[in-house]
Amino acid sequence: MTATATDKLIERFRNGERPALARLLTYVENERPAGLRAMAELYRDTGNAYVVGITGPPGAGKSTLTNAVIREYRRRDKTVGVLAIDPSSSLTGGATLGDRIRMLENYEDEGVYIRSMATRGEMGGLSMAVGAVTHLLDAYGFDIIVVETVGVGQDEVDVAELADTTLLLQVPGLGDSIQTIKAGVLEIADILVVNKADIKGAENVVRDLRNMLRLGEHGPWLPPIVRTVAVNGDNIEALLDTIDKHRAHLESSGEGQARRERRARREVLRLAQNWLAGQLEEVIREPAMEPMLEKLRQRDINPFEVAAEVARRTSVRVQSRG
Amino acid sequence: MTATATDKLIERFRNGERPALARLLTYVENERPAGLRAMAELYRDTGNAYVVGITGPPGAGKSTLTNAVIREYRRRDKTVGVLAIDPSSSLTGGATLGDRIRMLENYEDEGVYIRSMATRGEMGGLSMAVGAVTHLLDAYGFDIIVVETVGVGQDEVDVAELADTTLLLQVPGLGDSIQTIKAGVLEIADILVVNKADIKGAENVVRDLRNMLRLGEHGPWLPPIVRTVAVNGDNIEALLDTIDKHRAHLESSGEGQARRERRARREVLRLAQNWLAGQLEEVIREPAMEPMLEKLRQRDINPFEVAAEVARRTSVRVQSRG
Repeated sequence: MTATATDKLIERFRNGERPALARLLTYVENERPAGLRAMAELYRDTGNAYVVGITGPPGAGKSTLTNAVIREYRRRDKTVGVLAIDPSSSLTGGATLGDRIRMLENYEDEGVYIRSMATRGEMGGLSMAVGAVTHLLDAYGFDIIVVETVGVGQDEVDVAELADTTLLLQVPGLGDSIQTIKAGVLEIADILVVNKADIKGAENVVRDLRNMLRLGEHGPWLPPIVRTVAVNGDNIEALLDTIDKHRAHLESSGEGQARRERRARREVLRLAQNWLAGQLEEVIREPAMEPMLEKLRQRDINPFEVAAEVARRTSVRVQSRG
Repeated sequence: MTATATDKLIERFRNGERPALARLLTYVENERPAGLRAMAELYRDTGNAYVVGITGPPGAGKSTLTNAVIREYRRRDKTVGVLAIDPSSSLTGGATLGDRIRMLENYEDEGVYIRSMATRGEMGGLSMAVGAVTHLLDAYGFDIIVVETVGVGQDEVDVAELADTTLLLQVPGLGDSIQTIKAGVLEIADILVVNKADIKGAENVVRDLRNMLRLGEHGPWLPPIVRTVAVNGDNIEALLDTIDKHRAHLESSGEGQARRERRARREVLRLAQNWLAGQLEEVIREPAMEPMLEKLRQRDINPFEVAAEVARRTSVRVQSRG
């Protein structure tokens, strides 16, 4: 894609044309040069959206809750961009999270945009592009961005890094799901949502969460527990009010500014790490590395020594390109 | 710790003294200089252990299976080192995986050593030290190293990277656990173990796994499905025979050599990435970065540009130290 074509696409994006948004998101996701160019151009338009993260175990009703949240935000005249991050296996052939959200409602509403994104897989955590996709949705002008992911490990922590307010969903009847909340996951929750609050065991879940909160550490904001029945919209208004309360707390306490600062630094670090990781992988494949790898095979040297050499060669490479 | 003291510790390690093993493992885990020195010295003694990875969802009976596997290996006169990787929250106050394995049996057996290790948390995946801990257990002379972790995301993929043979545990009665096997997780299994095979629903689990295997891709080795009842040792002999079969396949097909090669490269890359990540974090905190971070705050530049600068500065730093 030529620079001129990219510029035209950016112009159409700025005019609010939905296909231009979709196209640029794809470029950004695939780290195409046009995507980088668009990011460089559009980043200055970001900083207005409020990002709500939704995470929780499979079966907690995240898609249903997301729909209920969208509906209530629309009722409040807010536009909503949704990024549904999907770690489910291609093997299972299931619908993506984004599909599931769309299936529940028939969105012809111009105020709602839903995007699915698969996690990249092997090298851990969310795709580097998640941050960039969020920026584009922000620059496009959505008031609220909902980032949703199934809680299976690192992803939920990564989502919290992106969000202003993070909702952690729990639900009765998933066996030992609460007992196995991973280190750091409860800590990332700003609001605990006990969904399917009308079924048996819901109060046990609330009590367990309360006990865990008591044992854990928290700052001036004690994460409230909100009971919802997302499937019929019960208490979703209260949930959005609680999000607003958290937003007000972030602003009045200065914590919002501190979070944005940490988030920006983390994004920079991740991008740099990702880029360097790519460089490292190229360096280790260089023929010049082969004698050292052969020594490693013979156990004449150890992995730490080889790693130091690969890092050194990578730095030479980065410099000669700088 | 002085170099001489480290050398003495290494000597005691080589004499098979258990406290020296424990001490060096702690140094390696905490990335202390003495640990690096020991690794440099002891890496040449590695390459003899066979590494069996065990992963699966919470409640699948991994600790019980690990115990049964240890017992059967001991019956076959093999020594066993166990590395139990524990992602569970400190909040829950539960026993570590290693504790749970030990609680089940009273190990006074010199042929068994069990080590628990917490995952480091925030920045994703297993601690960098896991590889080094495995090397030390290998150098100490254990015939078999069992690496066990609860399957909650990236960790299980990382464990498979370390293992020669990876067992993926499934179990009836955990709801949609099979439906939510993450992309890449079924692919990493060399042997599928359906534990608690005596309870209702076990055959459904076997059938689901078979269907998933049919849909997925695999090489010349089709992962066999082994039914076990670990709690009373049922079919553990067959499981170990299946591990031996996989081992023979790895050797005869050349896949074992290819795996070891990939594993060594991945370890080098991870170590280099980890080290560079630490450098990046120091660089972004340098006062010289502040003007650029301020521009980022003002959205005059975007995160990609800042990341490029941080990477460039890091490379200068690495070079000046090389």
